[in-house]
Amino acid sequence: MSVLPLRDFYCVIPAGGVGSRLWPLSRADAPKFLHDLTGSGSTLLRATWNRLSPLAGPQRVMVVTGRAHRAAVESQIPALADANVVLESEPRDSTAAIGLAAAILERREPGVIIGSFAADHVIGSEPLFRAAVIEAVSAARAGYITTIGIQPTEPAVGFGYIHVGEQLDIESARSAKRVTSFVEKPDLETATGYLSSGDYLWNASMFIAKASVLLEAIGKSEPKLLAGLLELAEAWDDPAARGPAVDRIWPTLKKVAIDYSVAEPAAAAGKLAVVPGHFAWDDVGDFASLAKLNSGGRASDLAILGENARVLSDASSGIVVSQTNRVISLIGIQNVVIVDTPDALLVTTSENAQRVKAVVEALRLTGSTEVL
Amino acid sequence: MSVLPLRDFYCVIPAGGVGSRLWPLSRADAPKFLHDLTGSGSTLLRATWNRLSPLAGPQRVMVVTGRAHRAAVESQIPALADANVVLESEPRDSTAAIGLAAAILERREPGVIIGSFAADHVIGSEPLFRAAVIEAVSAARAGYITTIGIQPTEPAVGFGYIHVGEQLDIESARSAKRVTSFVEKPDLETATGYLSSGDYLWNASMFIAKASVLLEAIGKSEPKLLAGLLELAEAWDDPAARGPAVDRIWPTLKKVAIDYSVAEPAAAAGKLAVVPGHFAWDDVGDFASLAKLNSGGRASDLAILGENARVLSDASSGIVVSQTNRVISLIGIQNVVIVDTPDALLVTTSENAQRVKAVVEALRLTGSTEVL
Repeated sequence: MSVLPLRDFYCVIPAGGVGSRLWPLSRADAPKFLHDLTGSGSTLLRATWNRLSPLAGPQRVMVVTGRAHRAAVESQIPALADANVVLESEPRDSTAAIGLAAAILERREPGVIIGSFAADHVIGSEPLFRAAVIEAVSAARAGYITTIGIQPTEPAVGFGYIHVGEQLDIESARSAKRVTSFVEKPDLETATGYLSSGDYLWNASMFIAKASVLLEAIGKSEPKLLAGLLELAEAWDDPAARGPAVDRIWPTLKKVAIDYSVAEPAAAAGKLAVVPGHFAWDDVGDFASLAKLNSGGRASDLAILGENARVLSDASSGIVVSQTNRVISLIGIQNVVIVDTPDALLVTTSENAQRVKAVVEALRLTGSTEVL
Repeated sequence: MSVLPLRDFYCVIPAGGVGSRLWPLSRADAPKFLHDLTGSGSTLLRATWNRLSPLAGPQRVMVVTGRAHRAAVESQIPALADANVVLESEPRDSTAAIGLAAAILERREPGVIIGSFAADHVIGSEPLFRAAVIEAVSAARAGYITTIGIQPTEPAVGFGYIHVGEQLDIESARSAKRVTSFVEKPDLETATGYLSSGDYLWNASMFIAKASVLLEAIGKSEPKLLAGLLELAEAWDDPAARGPAVDRIWPTLKKVAIDYSVAEPAAAAGKLAVVPGHFAWDDVGDFASLAKLNSGGRASDLAILGENARVLSDASSGIVVSQTNRVISLIGIQNVVIVDTPDALLVTTSENAQRVKAVVEALRLTGSTEVL
C-alpha cells in the first residue's frame, strides 16, 4: 500500500464545461460543477477536491477555470492556494486547459506527475478510486500516459468507451493494460456487445502522466499549440509578464479535446495504459442520469432535488428539480423531467434528456441568452 | 323577429364556481369567470354580460356572486347597478343563488321572466344564441320552465344530457320540445348512442322561466329552502333589514343544485321545455377543453395562453398557460398541460385533465391552502 499523499504527484481539475444538457439548472454563470447534484451537501467541484486532496496533498491540487468562476471556485475551496488557480480568459477546450497546467507545473517542478480529473463527475467508493489512482500514478511513473477506465455496469450509450488490450508488466500497477483504441458513444447494440465482451471500459476523461510526457504528446499532434502553452508557462509565474502573455497567446490556441490531441494518438502508438476502475461513476450528463443518481438506484422512484421543493405527484419515475418555493403538481406523466427555476422552466421526459442541449442552442439563436 | 330588449325579461348570472379543474389558473380569489380563457380580451363574466345585456337591457342583468368577488365583478361590469348585485356570504349552491334572485325580482316586478346563464361558459354564434333565448322566453311566458339544450357535435363524456321528447305547440317557440329527463355525464358508449339517436342535447345549465313558476317549483321539492328565500327577498330591499336577514337565514339554506331541485322534478312532471341551441358552446370544464378551445379547433396545435408567454416547444398538441414571464421549454410530450403561475405549477396531460380537481383536494388536505 502506498503512503498518501503520493510523491511527485499533482492533481489538475479542469472546471470548464457548462453542462448544457442540464439546463436550466446549469447556466453559464452557475455551471454544473458548482451544483450539488447528489444531495450530499457538497458541490461537485468541492466533492472532487475532497476526493483528490488526500492523494496529492491539499497544496498540490490545481484548478483551471474561467475568470467568471474565480470567486465561486475560491469560495468552494477556501484552502486553494492562489498559485493553484489558473484562470482562462475564454474557454479553449481541454488540451489548452490541461496542457497549460502541465506546462506550468513542469516548470515549477520538473519531473512532476499530473492527474487530470473532471470537476463535475460523481464517484462512488473513494477507497476503490484511490486504489485506481495509485496504480495509475505508478504506470505514469513508468512513462505511460495512463487513463482510468470504468468497469461498465450496463450498455450505456451516453459514454465513450476504451478498448482494452494486452496486460502490461508495470511494477505497482498490476492491473494496468494497454489501450487499443478510444471509441465514441456507441449505439445500444454495439454497447451491448462491448459489455458482454468484457474488453471495454467507460472513458471517464481521467488522465495521469508525467507532465513532460503529456506535453511531448501534445507537441506531436499539435506543435503550435504546445509552443503557445510553453510560452504562456514561461511567463506565468512572473506577475508583470503573465497578463500580456495571456492576452496575446490564449485566444490563438487551437480548441481541441485532449481525447483527440493526446489519447487517441497515444493509443494508436501503443503508449496509452489503462487501469480499470471498479468504483461507481457517472458524468451526470443529462437529467435521465441525474434522475437515476437521485432515486437511490431504483427506477421506480421519482427523484426530487431542491431544499424547498414542494411536490405533489403521482409519478413513480423521473425527476423534479425545484429552485423556487412554488407548489409543483404533477399528474400522470412517467419518466418526467421538471426543472423549475426562477426564470426558466423545463418540462420533458428522461427519453428526451439528451435533446435539452438543442433547446439551449435554440434559445441562443432566438436571443434568449439571459436565461442561458 | 322579436324586438330587443325582450319585455318582462331579466337575466341572472350566478357567478360562483371556482373551477377547481382549472387550478392553478382558477383560484378561490380568481375564479374561472374572472379569466379571459379564449384570448378575446374579455373575461368570461364580461363576455356573458355583453351577450345578455342586449337581450334584457343593461339595467336588467343581475349578478349573484360571493362577497369576495364584489370589487372584481363591478370592475368587470361598470354599468352594473348596485341593486343588481346580489352578494352571497358563503356559497350555498345554485338553487339558493338563482332562487334568491328570482324571489327578489318577483317582489320588485311581479310576473317577471328570468333567464339564468352561467358566468363562465363560452358561446359561439351570438345571433343563434339570441334566437334560442327569444324562443325560450316565449316558452317561459307560456308557463314552462325552459332550458336551452345544446346540439351535440361529438360524444362528449364531460357534459350532462337532456333527453328530448315530443314537440310542444307554443306560439313563437316553434322548436320547443318537452324534456323527458335529465341524464348525468355518460360513458363514451352511451354518449355515442345519444349522439346517433338525435334525441339528446347537452345540458348547459340555462334556465328560463317566470320567477313565480321557478319559485313554485323550488317550493315543491324544497319547501324550507323556498321559505328562507322568500324571507330573505322580503328583507332584501330594506337596507336595515337585509344584513341581519342574510346573517340569520343564508347559512341555513340547503345546498342543492337547481338541476336536482327544479329541473329533474319538472322534467318528470312533464313541465320542462327545451329549445335546441345550434351555437357552439363549452363549459371549459378542464384544461383539455381549454386546449381545444384555444387551438383554433385543430387537435394538432399547441395552444398557448398568456400575454407574456415565452414558450419553446416541439409539442403539436396540448396547452401552455403562462402567467409569469419565465421561459418555458417543452420537449417531447404530446397533449401536455403546463400551467405556470407565480406560486404554483401544474404539469399533466389532456388525458388527465379531469384529475386536476383531486390535486386541489390533496393540497387542501395537506394545508397548502395559500395556493388554492
